[in-house]
Amino acid sequence: MSSYAAPLKDLRFVLNELAGLSEVAKLPGCEEATPDTVDAILEEASKFASEVLDPLNHSGDEEGSNWSGGEVTTPKGFKQAYRQYAEGGWAALPFGAEWGGQGLPKLVATAVEEMLTSSNMSFSLCPLLTQGAIHALELAGSEALKKTYLGKMVSGAWTGTMNLTEPQAGSDLALVRTKAKKTGDHYLISGQKIFITYGEHDLAENIVHLVLARTPEAPEGVKGISLFVVPKFLPRPDGKPGERNGARCASIEHKLGIHASPTAVMVFENAVGYLVGEENKGLAYMFVMMNAARFSVGLEGVAVAERAFQRALAYARERLQGKDLEDGKTVPIIRHPDVRRMLMLMKSQTEAMRALAYVVAAEMDFASTSKDKEERKRHQAFVDLMIPVVKGWSTETGIEIASLGVQVHGGMGFIEETGAAQHLRDARITTIYEGTTGIQANDLVGRKIARDGGATVKGWISALRGFDQELAKSTNPDVQAMRSCLAAGVQAVSDAVDFILATAGKDPNAAFAGAVPFLKLMGITAGGWQMARAALAAERGLQAGSDKQFLQAKIKTARFFGDHVLSQASGLAATVINGSAAVMALAEDQFLAA
Amino acid sequence: MSSYAAPLKDLRFVLNELAGLSEVAKLPGCEEATPDTVDAILEEASKFASEVLDPLNHSGDEEGSNWSGGEVTTPKGFKQAYRQYAEGGWAALPFGAEWGGQGLPKLVATAVEEMLTSSNMSFSLCPLLTQGAIHALELAGSEALKKTYLGKMVSGAWTGTMNLTEPQAGSDLALVRTKAKKTGDHYLISGQKIFITYGEHDLAENIVHLVLARTPEAPEGVKGISLFVVPKFLPRPDGKPGERNGARCASIEHKLGIHASPTAVMVFENAVGYLVGEENKGLAYMFVMMNAARFSVGLEGVAVAERAFQRALAYARERLQGKDLEDGKTVPIIRHPDVRRMLMLMKSQTEAMRALAYVVAAEMDFASTSKDKEERKRHQAFVDLMIPVVKGWSTETGIEIASLGVQVHGGMGFIEETGAAQHLRDARITTIYEGTTGIQANDLVGRKIARDGGATVKGWISALRGFDQELAKSTNPDVQAMRSCLAAGVQAVSDAVDFILATAGKDPNAAFAGAVPFLKLMGITAGGWQMARAALAAERGLQAGSDKQFLQAKIKTARFFGDHVLSQASGLAATVINGSAAVMALAEDQFLAA
Repeated sequence: MSSYAAPLKDLRFVLNELAGLSEVAKLPGCEEATPDTVDAILEEASKFASEVLDPLNHSGDEEGSNWSGGEVTTPKGFKQAYRQYAEGGWAALPFGAEWGGQGLPKLVATAVEEMLTSSNMSFSLCPLLTQGAIHALELAGSEALKKTYLGKMVSGAWTGTMNLTEPQAGSDLALVRTKAKKTGDHYLISGQKIFITYGEHDLAENIVHLVLARTPEAPEGVKGISLFVVPKFLPRPDGKPGERNGARCASIEHKLGIHASPTAVMVFENAVGYLVGEENKGLAYMFVMMNAARFSVGLEGVAVAERAFQRALAYARERLQGKDLEDGKTVPIIRHPDVRRMLMLMKSQTEAMRALAYVVAAEMDFASTSKDKEERKRHQAFVDLMIPVVKGWSTETGIEIASLGVQVHGGMGFIEETGAAQHLRDARITTIYEGTTGIQANDLVGRKIARDGGATVKGWISALRGFDQELAKSTNPDVQAMRSCLAAGVQAVSDAVDFILATAGKDPNAAFAGAVPFLKLMGITAGGWQMARAALAAERGLQAGSDKQFLQAKIKTARFFGDHVLSQASGLAATVINGSAAVMALAEDQFLAA
Repeated sequence: MSSYAAPLKDLRFVLNELAGLSEVAKLPGCEEATPDTVDAILEEASKFASEVLDPLNHSGDEEGSNWSGGEVTTPKGFKQAYRQYAEGGWAALPFGAEWGGQGLPKLVATAVEEMLTSSNMSFSLCPLLTQGAIHALELAGSEALKKTYLGKMVSGAWTGTMNLTEPQAGSDLALVRTKAKKTGDHYLISGQKIFITYGEHDLAENIVHLVLARTPEAPEGVKGISLFVVPKFLPRPDGKPGERNGARCASIEHKLGIHASPTAVMVFENAVGYLVGEENKGLAYMFVMMNAARFSVGLEGVAVAERAFQRALAYARERLQGKDLEDGKTVPIIRHPDVRRMLMLMKSQTEAMRALAYVVAAEMDFASTSKDKEERKRHQAFVDLMIPVVKGWSTETGIEIASLGVQVHGGMGFIEETGAAQHLRDARITTIYEGTTGIQANDLVGRKIARDGGATVKGWISALRGFDQELAKSTNPDVQAMRSCLAAGVQAVSDAVDFILATAGKDPNAAFAGAVPFLKLMGITAGGWQMARAALAAERGLQAGSDKQFLQAKIKTARFFGDHVLSQASGLAATVINGSAAVMALAEDQFLAA
């Protein structure tokens, strides 16, 4: 089994050449992100990922987390790894100094997060959910709540969870039934929550649940949901965990993948909870953390794709099978065109997804810390447009890449010991949690495109058309091939957007019927845009005499992406535009008529 | 968890309206296939699948087959089910009366096989491999071998295996090392084989291994491989199993899916083997059974897709979540456009794959039993062209459909108890065994298209263009929409074929670089052809006053297939034609340069 090595060269290339790290480092509060500091962080994170987390990935999958009498034991080695994670300051990376954080830009934290997730996705989910909980408290928690919880969570001493889902309330949070009854300065929370990632575990001394619930007088639907902090142990005045709260783990799920990550059924019985922000505004707070979580899940798509690619590449280089088509000798399978095609599909899409995600991460930094308010708004609009694309496209493609990873291994890919199958099983959750691809696509079509009359997306389309003029200057035939694929992609997006804007108001079913194909179209076009930018940056780098092997590969990889991925664009637009007619054409009974 | 119900209406529609069962029944030896007999068989198979095999599918997955001391125990209930399978005469269905078979056409056997596989893919693999072994013995076995083995195997008393793969010899059988030393009337076989499906089990009293091995003087490579019968127990003169042979199961694999099907590592130590046919011709015999097995694996794609669709449909009809886009009420998720789109993708592609597979099965009947030799040759050429398409396209699409089935379930799809994840895990092997999709695609491009200068595929393209004239007569707008999608598909195939023919000789890497996208293009176009035929047949049926619900759904489903699946055709052709440049563009070291 191959081990994970962080793709540091590509990470640096994307950070510096595409995502504009030097500009981000000029933002207020981001000044820590000097080239030397960032380099040191990347190196250290890469070591931690390879040396500590990667060795636990397969064993963690085999052993899984185990439930017994309400307690959850994580797999062997996880506790020690978590301690190293907290002690290394990794939990504190993206947070402000006020709570002990390191105050690094989202962009830098993104690169670290990718590495940790590549090496051990199950492990990485605990920090991911904790970060979401920290964001919610930062956003809406009272000073007292912040004081009690944020320091502990930023240091990694305590972890956090998001308790949204109930058996009858999944994507549809209007159906949440968990109750919150006010008693003095706190509430008593009662109800059942399911699918709670790291809802119970043995990694940290306390767990801070953020729980959606309804007060007795709350209006029905999403406007009557409030957000509460419900700690596993009630903090004592000295800040240490005290009395056990009535929040218990009734069982954990038997899942397709991420076996090491405990997915808990949580039962709250008059558990003490503290209101976050105002009553009935819980969903709005939740959405803020959900957007960050959606971005992170998109990044999981990138991360698992990278890991699957590395494993497949290692196998393809060593497995001798079949003869070279030209010289007839037995060769490693990387010499066979179809194996090469699969590896290039893995490599090119992973690089495109990474570039898009990091560019969006940088935009988040601009959106949160630019001095000018209009600037912030403009960057935020772009981030809002792209979050569902990063989440939906990178996860769908991540699954495809993990599946290609199995395929490259042939029969060995189906054997669990090889490890390739685990990536596919792990990746399979990413298009589901934090909002399915359908939910992302509806968000994209409805909230992000129809709502502002297409203003943001049309601005982006114009920018892409302007960028075409830059591409036109290159004399490289690979760049020109890519340019024409990208132009077709942009036209396809533009046609599909026109259809959506014309349809969304009068026939919503028709507009939303093509939402997922549209999201894929947006993804491959945005990814193609980044790969084309990468190709131009590589041309500049080659002229400057930088790393030839890497930069020439980048240009060829961009061209491959154009011919093998962007080539789907016009077909996707046709599906969006023509395909709505047949989607709802059957009466429900007709599905049973076979 | 939903239970399997055979889609009998669609099976009958495809058998009668698309695959020409009445014409097949006129072929010599196929006269048993009267409408009444076929109906009775379909009903009985449907019952056996739903009542006996389906209830063991999930439990079989959970329990798995277990190895201990060389013996393999199949999951609870499998033994009893296998007895019922043999006693019901299901094993005998497609074989000649000479060995106790029922002599039914391949077309009818195909419908039965689909149902058994849908209900329990792990179980169905034992019969599948046995049938392959029977075919090889029928084809090349001596009269003595046939007499000893065929009756037992056709009755189901004994099962069969195919022992091809060795650790160093997977797709590349030239590397087979297992040895066969002649001693009197038999050979002594020594070596190790891996990935042997049902290589050891407790379902039957004997196991008949068909083993590829080399005699001491054999030439190197594929021209030095011979085929041997190696029974687990040497048959006594009275036909009963006697002495234990030196063929032992060293272990079974821990796999991603098909847990109930034991995948054995077999060790042969001076095991007694009997030559099948002539020395050094083993590979040719193996290819005959492999073609049948490839077709069957393609059918597994159809079968698992159907089962995944049924499960997703049942969930989508009962799960209440989200509000109707138009009237704002909480509805079952089948009302949401994207869920509907996923169900239609599942339904339309499953129906298209089924129709193509059954049409090819009928062609197999014509190819093997038509009176006229030229007729047989013509049908065989079409079968040869389409086998890799049925295998490659139906399995790739089967995985996609099983994955959509998980997606329709949302979070519940990731929980193993739901059953949707099992279909994805089971389906994942189908693009690998009996030749990966890459192997199928190379076979298609090299042997089936380039070798005859494109004659067969061009004949098919002409037939499709002729069929366009039939479609032109319809006044139904859905049929016309489908017609234009199909025409674009045919043009895309034609363009891609021209490229392949122009390139295969002078630049094989370029021709084979697009082999898999080309195979997918062939698949969706052939599937679209069948769906368009189905739409015309449905129009005729509606005029004749037949089942309105079913037939109207068929026309809408055909249109959906055009807009959502065939729409990819021109992009795939572009990838085949333009995409070869970048596939091999990187030096191998450049993959490591990140």
